[in-house]
Amino acid sequence: MTIAANDALVLDAAAQDLLFREARTANSFTDEPVTDEQVQAIYDLIKYGPTAFNQQPLRIVLVRTPEGRERLVQHMAEGNQAKTSAAPLVAILAQDNEFHEELPTVFPHFPQAKDVFFAERSTRESSAALNGALQAAYFIIGVRAAGLAAGPMTGFDAAAINKEFFPEGDHSVLAVVNIGMPGEDAWFPRSPRLEYDQVVTTV
Amino acid sequence: MTIAANDALVLDAAAQDLLFREARTANSFTDEPVTDEQVQAIYDLIKYGPTAFNQQPLRIVLVRTPEGRERLVQHMAEGNQAKTSAAPLVAILAQDNEFHEELPTVFPHFPQAKDVFFAERSTRESSAALNGALQAAYFIIGVRAAGLAAGPMTGFDAAAINKEFFPEGDHSVLAVVNIGMPGEDAWFPRSPRLEYDQVVTTV
Repeated sequence: MTIAANDALVLDAAAQDLLFREARTANSFTDEPVTDEQVQAIYDLIKYGPTAFNQQPLRIVLVRTPEGRERLVQHMAEGNQAKTSAAPLVAILAQDNEFHEELPTVFPHFPQAKDVFFAERSTRESSAALNGALQAAYFIIGVRAAGLAAGPMTGFDAAAINKEFFPEGDHSVLAVVNIGMPGEDAWFPRSPRLEYDQVVTTV
Repeated sequence: MTIAANDALVLDAAAQDLLFREARTANSFTDEPVTDEQVQAIYDLIKYGPTAFNQQPLRIVLVRTPEGRERLVQHMAEGNQAKTSAAPLVAILAQDNEFHEELPTVFPHFPQAKDVFFAERSTRESSAALNGALQAAYFIIGVRAAGLAAGPMTGFDAAAINKEFFPEGDHSVLAVVNIGMPGEDAWFPRSPRLEYDQVVTTV
């Protein structure tokens, strides 16, 4: 099955392994720091991933200071607190519900989109939720492209994180991602994936 | 900037180009068919992308028959109808709001997750929306990994597609994706991306 899959793909096997096949969600990390240069390189790659109306609603907060880490960890689910305290870098991924302000610049084909499609906050929130999640996935792939391991988490008090880090009320947290080089026993054994026939149907 | 980015990434430059830098959202395609073998290879790659509790809520409907295409196209926004009619393959990406039924199998670390965390439909819907969107992004990356172009769209009548293709009420469409080899004038010029400093902040 693996060989057949490789044959039908253009992406080389090493890249397949780096991004998907051997990459794993890490729960522990070495002490090696993650540099701003690495994060910049990740962003410079994944910014090209597509979003509706090129809206790019993802915003990233890098939690680097001890104070920032403390402010975040208190709102994580208990089982996520120790690893979020210890990770070399933690990124809060959020959607900007006011992304439409940038549309006249980032979607020059139809600069009116800001007012025609996104005048309502509720419309912006649902569109930013979908497109922000697409970009969160591109970010996870980008972390792996940098040779790092990601530990994405959704176990936290979202309302509390929004209030703590986005007091103006215009952002909604999507995920919190620990980032670094994987440590010892960084992951569980790989859990089963659904079979093709459980996922794909044809009409 | 591009060179600096490449230096800080482990992923090779050809793969960066294939998946992000040169890949584009296609609006027209050649007549070359997209085979089931290619879709299987895409799935066999992207199924490894991470989801919360390994929930894997993404379901894919390949629209191959003329009847199926007609059922879909009527519910697309006017500007998306012609290209959705003409694409070699169209995939409906949906979230399965009953994904929790599989959790005892796919998340063996904590088989009780099905009842402890996901007893409520509303909780499942919001979790599947986020994680289904992550998988939709993995799918777009996978299409590109197969050397194909993706044309993801969200301009459609979601309620009508849900009723048409998922009459049991347990799925919600996330996106519709045209797939094939890019045709002539397949895309607009690349639109601007937000700068690093517009997206990333540090605390």
